[in-house]
Amino acid sequence: MHSHPLRQIIESCDKAISARDFDSLMEHYSEDAALVVKPGMIVKGKDNIRKAFIAISDYFQDQLTVEQGDMQVIEGGGTALVIMETVLRFPEDLRGDTEITRRATYVFRKEMNGRWICTIDNSYGTSLLDTEAV
Amino acid sequence: MHSHPLRQIIESCDKAISARDFDSLMEHYSEDAALVVKPGMIVKGKDNIRKAFIAISDYFQDQLTVEQGDMQVIEGGGTALVIMETVLRFPEDLRGDTEITRRATYVFRKEMNGRWICTIDNSYGTSLLDTEAV
Repeated sequence: MHSHPLRQIIESCDKAISARDFDSLMEHYSEDAALVVKPGMIVKGKDNIRKAFIAISDYFQDQLTVEQGDMQVIEGGGTALVIMETVLRFPEDLRGDTEITRRATYVFRKEMNGRWICTIDNSYGTSLLDTEAV
Repeated sequence: MHSHPLRQIIESCDKAISARDFDSLMEHYSEDAALVVKPGMIVKGKDNIRKAFIAISDYFQDQLTVEQGDMQVIEGGGTALVIMETVLRFPEDLRGDTEITRRATYVFRKEMNGRWICTIDNSYGTSLLDTEAV
């Protein structure tokens, strides 16, 4: 599998989350991006997404690590759909589980300057349909 | 659940497919859209997508019907990610199965005039990761 430029962007986002470098992280989001914090809870806009990431990081006492597995990218119409295996790890004393694997879906938009920016960050993928529609 | 404008668009696409009205169908796709025909096979551009839909319709001898179930829409950065239960039905004499349910992922882009057009049509959703990466 060839490494897609979007894989590098997503990996640098993961590193930024682990390092609590929220300035670097937010450079990869569009002003009016959407983040699915959990099923039924979507936050919009860079400021709110930043706050959500800080809250998530605080909740996990900075011990959350995010790692990406298999990835498929479909590009079309100036957008890209990334389908990606995402592994979340956190210490056992905070929760029963230490590892959660999800199939995430991310939407990126190609800017005029050729840069990809994230418009929709949905780490829950199609499992959103498991929950009540909101 | 409120009916999102994108649900109406997707439903009119399904009707167009059933009616072999490929002109109406293609009005909802961007010029450089991408369609996942099957895992590992992506076609790009309106002409190729149109041909793919005609081939699919011919294969099923015009007896394929597409119906949508539960739906979640996430909007952000001028794009929308639609996650949708899709039920495909076709006569039993063509295949062993008569009904297949998928969790599809569609990406739409909002045009300057406010219209939503499909940029990525991936009815396989995150199940693309079940197959070998291509």
